[in-house]
Amino acid sequence: MKKAGIQLDADCASGLTELAAALGTKAVLTEPADCDRYASDQSGLIGARPLAVLRPANTEEVAQALRICTRHRIAVVPQGGRTGLSGGASSPAGAVVLSTERMTGVIELDRQGMTMTVWAGTPLETVQTTAREAGLDYPVDIGARGTATIGGTIATNAGGIRVLQHGMTRQNVLGLEAVLADGTILSRLGKTMKDNSGLDLKHLLIGSEGTLGVVTRAVLQLRQNVPDSALALIAVPDHAAALSCLSVARRWFGSRICAFEGMWPDYWDFVCRRTSLAEAAISGQHGFYVLIEVETDHANGEDALETFFAELFENGFAEDGVLAKSLAETQSLWRIREAVGEVDPDFGPHINFDIAVAPSELGKFCESADDLLEGLQDAAGTLKVGHVADGNVHLLVAHDGSAEAEERIETAIYELLSDWNGAVTAEHGVGRLKVRWITHSRSREEMAVMHTLKRQLDPFGILNPGALFGVPES
Amino acid sequence: MKKAGIQLDADCASGLTELAAALGTKAVLTEPADCDRYASDQSGLIGARPLAVLRPANTEEVAQALRICTRHRIAVVPQGGRTGLSGGASSPAGAVVLSTERMTGVIELDRQGMTMTVWAGTPLETVQTTAREAGLDYPVDIGARGTATIGGTIATNAGGIRVLQHGMTRQNVLGLEAVLADGTILSRLGKTMKDNSGLDLKHLLIGSEGTLGVVTRAVLQLRQNVPDSALALIAVPDHAAALSCLSVARRWFGSRICAFEGMWPDYWDFVCRRTSLAEAAISGQHGFYVLIEVETDHANGEDALETFFAELFENGFAEDGVLAKSLAETQSLWRIREAVGEVDPDFGPHINFDIAVAPSELGKFCESADDLLEGLQDAAGTLKVGHVADGNVHLLVAHDGSAEAEERIETAIYELLSDWNGAVTAEHGVGRLKVRWITHSRSREEMAVMHTLKRQLDPFGILNPGALFGVPES
Repeated sequence: MKKAGIQLDADCASGLTELAAALGTKAVLTEPADCDRYASDQSGLIGARPLAVLRPANTEEVAQALRICTRHRIAVVPQGGRTGLSGGASSPAGAVVLSTERMTGVIELDRQGMTMTVWAGTPLETVQTTAREAGLDYPVDIGARGTATIGGTIATNAGGIRVLQHGMTRQNVLGLEAVLADGTILSRLGKTMKDNSGLDLKHLLIGSEGTLGVVTRAVLQLRQNVPDSALALIAVPDHAAALSCLSVARRWFGSRICAFEGMWPDYWDFVCRRTSLAEAAISGQHGFYVLIEVETDHANGEDALETFFAELFENGFAEDGVLAKSLAETQSLWRIREAVGEVDPDFGPHINFDIAVAPSELGKFCESADDLLEGLQDAAGTLKVGHVADGNVHLLVAHDGSAEAEERIETAIYELLSDWNGAVTAEHGVGRLKVRWITHSRSREEMAVMHTLKRQLDPFGILNPGALFGVPES
Repeated sequence: MKKAGIQLDADCASGLTELAAALGTKAVLTEPADCDRYASDQSGLIGARPLAVLRPANTEEVAQALRICTRHRIAVVPQGGRTGLSGGASSPAGAVVLSTERMTGVIELDRQGMTMTVWAGTPLETVQTTAREAGLDYPVDIGARGTATIGGTIATNAGGIRVLQHGMTRQNVLGLEAVLADGTILSRLGKTMKDNSGLDLKHLLIGSEGTLGVVTRAVLQLRQNVPDSALALIAVPDHAAALSCLSVARRWFGSRICAFEGMWPDYWDFVCRRTSLAEAAISGQHGFYVLIEVETDHANGEDALETFFAELFENGFAEDGVLAKSLAETQSLWRIREAVGEVDPDFGPHINFDIAVAPSELGKFCESADDLLEGLQDAAGTLKVGHVADGNVHLLVAHDGSAEAEERIETAIYELLSDWNGAVTAEHGVGRLKVRWITHSRSREEMAVMHTLKRQLDPFGILNPGALFGVPES
């Protein structure tokens, strides 16, 4: 464990003066009203008002800022769009925030090479839109697309609904520029997916949640734009049948499956009660619900889909189904899946688990979790929705709002997960909220290596202290 | 640069005795005749006879061996199938070889989850065959598939002809187990592609060429087996037209393009002269040749391919073309591309560059390289063949066999490459042969971080000394 404590007081004032001199006063916010906006991300973890908000305009200014912060031992919380769900961008007391909000924009779009070079502060949606206008596509997609930044999605290795087809953010980044704690600029903005000239430092930084460096620029791998797609909702007997549907779909459509999302009856019924969306789509009680989206192009029309459905029904894998016939129907089917963001507050106090196991074991894992929670006084209901093909479920467990209940539920679920060799966070990241539980996924040996790397790259622990690695021992 | 030298003498004898006691004498080869087989890989770099060959049978034995080697400061060269082309497995003098040849076999095939867990020493072809027998596919494919091991492909982040569709080896590994220099076992054999619980140490080890750890087991991501595919050879006016063909192909087939390989006229003509393969396929002189393979399934038959071809000819992108009509024709078209392995010796003394630039710039880069080589007395001819969509060309430059000529040609090409922000090795790895040139791709800052990581994970530099990081300064 890290031994070097972080000194947040003595030197701070002169450090802030230096920062203002280096970056310009416009780039350093210190008014409490200004700073308050940067205290917290969307995880529900309330952060402290930062001492200042640094808004560098380019890579060199980020380097200057970090050099000064390292010299004065000032803790720095890197921030993109603050849409994270694990508290990785919620500020601890006595830190400054480094926001990438002034480092935005597309630097280059290489249409033929299918790459886009962008500043870290560029919103994900801007990248998606710019790509589409060129007949291309950037396939990382998450609900917070309008606010989340490319830098934030890289720092957290964002997932989303299209991981099945195109992987996590990590699989879609070709080149990366980042600044280390001491101001070292690591810049490798190559545009080829093939580069075996040495260790791939990019992958160490991706998903490091601002604890090893601050992402400043990136080269993104674009894909051919999908001309059109078809969306269907299928009711199936259980999770095992959903996996059978996935196998059949893979035979029919191979890598043209864009999404294969699953909803358990607890989630479905909750959405039915709250909205008219779910009931309007499919009636009756079913054991599991699947949203499947498939690319349709020149040669893959509705014929293939109908034959695919016929096979599902013949084999008893599907009980009911509906194919979206219009854009409006497509959107309303997707709203059922995305309603998890809306029903969330109605569900009362709850824990939002973002866990993954082997895809073939997800159904059984969820049964075990349900059994376990049934035996706990504290759990007042569950909602389960997730990514079937990735083995990733978002399990929401309601409780009475007490810290004790939360503690008992988290302990039970993460211990169960550990038995299944699962990931305590599949896509939201460790942040500050899941630091306690990381050892349920990672061994003592892995933790030791991670801490060794952190100490080497950030010896004074100024970068995002408390996130991912936990609070250093003093 | 690393300061700690490697001590290869004093302690060695007692170290070898300890190794034999720990692993059993059967697992430690010391007879010169036995050891000679392990001296070199396929790069042409002649290695020294190893002091001994360690053949551990499992992860714990690898850990024991490395603990002893670290304690006695014995240099260790990890070896898989010794098919590497950069000298990463050619042994320096005074080292022991650690071979994974006794750690072979498929541990688990998860058909529904589409994963395979294997021992590092398993040949790539065994994995491919086992996957296919289950209706699945492991898409990493290289010419040396019969001998190359999974561990070797992971240690070198192998590329190959299907990177366009499924990425490098890195993109196809879900879980990894490796042993560090001090015997620490890092084991994370999860079967989900989503795991954001901490730094992704796996990606630090993949492509580290045995300098940070020895891979022992891996969980591989399998894909749906491609039921059938169509292969065509197209003659086009130049590389720019090949890129246009690729754009059209992407519109027609999206992610169903399995391969898009390019051959320059120097390569084509050389193959024509040596074999009857090339001339039989397409006659006349053309500026560039493309092999395109596309998945054909239920809904994507020859109709689509013919309309695609029509579009190429209408736009003047293609001059001639042939579609393989049988398995025999498919094989003979692929042989033209794969003949690079056969014509290689006929070409005389030469340098085999494995370089990459942005895919959209590969044509112009090759023109610049040709111009440059024309001005050099030393270059006696070139062959260029490569992966158009990846920006990766294998450029073979013949010379008189002298070290001086080699030096001048390498200097010229790598300096040019540096101006183009290219990779000195796209897929073959740095090994020992390209260590001198790595700084043409990587900055001083990147090199410093790489060396820092190496020092932390292997403080005595016992793992594959001389490879990737170069020979430590004494």
